[in-house]
Amino acid sequence: MKMKAYQEMSKDELLALKNKLETEFENAKGMGLKLDMSRGKPCPSQLVMGMDILDVLTSESDMIASNGFDTRNYGVLDGIPEAKVLMAGIMGVKPENVIVFGNASLPIMYDTISRSMTHGVMGSTPWCKLDKVKFLCPAPGYDRHFAITEHFGIEMITIPMSSDGPDMDMVEKLVASDESIKGIWCVPKYSNPLGVTYSDETVKRFAALKPAAKDFRIFWDNAYAVHDLYDDKKDELLEILGECEKAGNPDMVYEFCSTSKISMAGAGVAAMAASKANLDFVKKSMTIQTIGYDKINQLRHVRYYKDMEGIKAHMKKHADLMRPKFEAVQKVLESELTGLGIGTWTKPNGGYFVSFDAMEGCAKAIVAKCKEAGVVLTGAGATFPYGKDPKDSNIRIAPSFPTPEEMAKATDLFVLCVKLVSVEKLLAE
Amino acid sequence: MKMKAYQEMSKDELLALKNKLETEFENAKGMGLKLDMSRGKPCPSQLVMGMDILDVLTSESDMIASNGFDTRNYGVLDGIPEAKVLMAGIMGVKPENVIVFGNASLPIMYDTISRSMTHGVMGSTPWCKLDKVKFLCPAPGYDRHFAITEHFGIEMITIPMSSDGPDMDMVEKLVASDESIKGIWCVPKYSNPLGVTYSDETVKRFAALKPAAKDFRIFWDNAYAVHDLYDDKKDELLEILGECEKAGNPDMVYEFCSTSKISMAGAGVAAMAASKANLDFVKKSMTIQTIGYDKINQLRHVRYYKDMEGIKAHMKKHADLMRPKFEAVQKVLESELTGLGIGTWTKPNGGYFVSFDAMEGCAKAIVAKCKEAGVVLTGAGATFPYGKDPKDSNIRIAPSFPTPEEMAKATDLFVLCVKLVSVEKLLAE
Repeated sequence: MKMKAYQEMSKDELLALKNKLETEFENAKGMGLKLDMSRGKPCPSQLVMGMDILDVLTSESDMIASNGFDTRNYGVLDGIPEAKVLMAGIMGVKPENVIVFGNASLPIMYDTISRSMTHGVMGSTPWCKLDKVKFLCPAPGYDRHFAITEHFGIEMITIPMSSDGPDMDMVEKLVASDESIKGIWCVPKYSNPLGVTYSDETVKRFAALKPAAKDFRIFWDNAYAVHDLYDDKKDELLEILGECEKAGNPDMVYEFCSTSKISMAGAGVAAMAASKANLDFVKKSMTIQTIGYDKINQLRHVRYYKDMEGIKAHMKKHADLMRPKFEAVQKVLESELTGLGIGTWTKPNGGYFVSFDAMEGCAKAIVAKCKEAGVVLTGAGATFPYGKDPKDSNIRIAPSFPTPEEMAKATDLFVLCVKLVSVEKLLAE
Repeated sequence: MKMKAYQEMSKDELLALKNKLETEFENAKGMGLKLDMSRGKPCPSQLVMGMDILDVLTSESDMIASNGFDTRNYGVLDGIPEAKVLMAGIMGVKPENVIVFGNASLPIMYDTISRSMTHGVMGSTPWCKLDKVKFLCPAPGYDRHFAITEHFGIEMITIPMSSDGPDMDMVEKLVASDESIKGIWCVPKYSNPLGVTYSDETVKRFAALKPAAKDFRIFWDNAYAVHDLYDDKKDELLEILGECEKAGNPDMVYEFCSTSKISMAGAGVAAMAASKANLDFVKKSMTIQTIGYDKINQLRHVRYYKDMEGIKAHMKKHADLMRPKFEAVQKVLESELTGLGIGTWTKPNGGYFVSFDAMEGCAKAIVAKCKEAGVVLTGAGATFPYGKDPKDSNIRIAPSFPTPEEMAKATDLFVLCVKLVSVEKLLAE
């Protein structure tokens, strides 16, 4: 059955539809749903999957790292060698370009900005001494990135996203002309929330940027490096450190990654990759900040996953858990919204999110309606700097936590809310 | 046998002694010692003692915290409730005054200074916007404290230490008169390196300070809160949060502690205690910096130690390991140096260090001589701001890592070097 687009309906048709949808919504409210699709949070079965990691270190001899160092003791600032190898594998870089940190990558990114504020970047003026510091923020993007820059009073400039990545014409022009632009936030693979992987051309254009500020850095948050959903449809991301080096910009990028969404969300291992010059500068502060991160947990990860083959095998099981949830969302969206002209959405090959674009001016109302009936979504606007979506259109759907059945139910409610809010919007015009 | 003080010897006696000591030193060098007394690092047997902590979490049901939260997942910014209780017990404060962090307390202190630089303290001007920020540094003190303030360009003012703690007349006068003084570093119990515990009067005078700067804070690093050496000689430290509250200064103190020297030096749990107003301010940045610290490791600690009784029982075993090392040092120092007039030293009831004061102008030479013969000590001067001991006299001895036998050997060499350098000094006068 061909669906009629809402925009083609007469006022009477819309009013009749509104009545019908309102009844459905009241019924849905009565179901007492309580579902959370707000954050990219692993589900219980995913956590069970990796439980054995807690049992790999038991005896005295287990505790010694490959450099002979006792992981239980103080020391080893930048991570045990085998953890560098493992994390380098995930990012596709060389172990000597890696520092291994604590349980998550967010604090590394925060600390990187914080250090730039107080100590500058490889000899540059501390950003807190400058009148103005700006960051480019491809959006829709990751709310926690934007929260860091906002927290430090850094002015954020929104950069539109396409299926190839950020609008590189705009990025190139801005960084070349404005010395106060010190960085750009990127989630280059299965981006949060679009699920877009930057094209080779985009990565090469990033690597070839000619920023006016010599302390400009690309913040390359490779959070979903190994988070494919399908065996036969995998996005490939060009490795940026090598590209930057080739382009004569070896120091222009910091890459971040973690095992938070591989092993344990609360107790993973995180890492940063960058040029030696960058790492040397980072270590100058690091050696004051800490004697060393939790090396036992680093070793635990290496002993459990062993190598990239181990990570890949684990992530296949991860994909088997995630795929049905994503498929449940896609199925409902397709069957309920195709042809209605009231929303578009992404069909990513990996990552943690589906990104939905409602009609302009509808996102906040849809999120509020969902909440009214017990389904919590990421706050509308969260995917934009300052929490302000100029079109009030983008909604991030995070299918990782609920079961596939719950996801289907939650998406049923979601499409109902999209329809109802869209009808109301059209009637008000 | 009554020893003759070196100062009472004739030049000929000193020359003869020098010859004898030089021969002894050459022999000692031939022994090929390789001992490290430089850092307060736990020894292998201490690490073995706590190995079972790695086995307490094995099943699914083990992983749930008392608030029903799955410790494996994202969330719980300020620590699981039972970890707050445990860390509060160590500090003698209420759990509601505690935030539990990651694997060590040094990063909490660093972050606290860093946050004050960029965001001020509870509404005050960010310190990076001020012309001058100063810290008081009781010394001899902890080199890593001084390294943090130096790293942020904070001017350090040395405060002399007595057996009751810092010179409070000086502290009171300075903080009351100078608004640029924003903090003071304290290790109030079994202080690093003196082993001094602040007297009740000192703590009360701290709590009653009337600082000119409303963003002045006492940085109370209670690193050795439960690190007694003897059952029958335990220092008691007055709890400062309560004292500050009584004195009408509830927000004036941050307290820090960790289990680094209780469980695993590299993989402990650390905490901060402060007033609700302070904690609320800290959490404003923390919620941007992290989704949560490693809660599995927090839970592991609680399940292993259970409560303060468990901690105390563990620390008794810890004391049994440490005591013979301290006694080995004391025995050699007493038998070899008593009455010679060339050095004084502390006999602490707990903590990790013995502090030695050589004749003025001798510390650097003694440390260098020891190194020449294979015994590494903390760098002379390290216990003072900017690494500069004005008298070049203080040397920190850290007996925790070597065995008692090694400690005896190392101290034998140490006293030989003290004698030789002192004779050379007297001859050069």
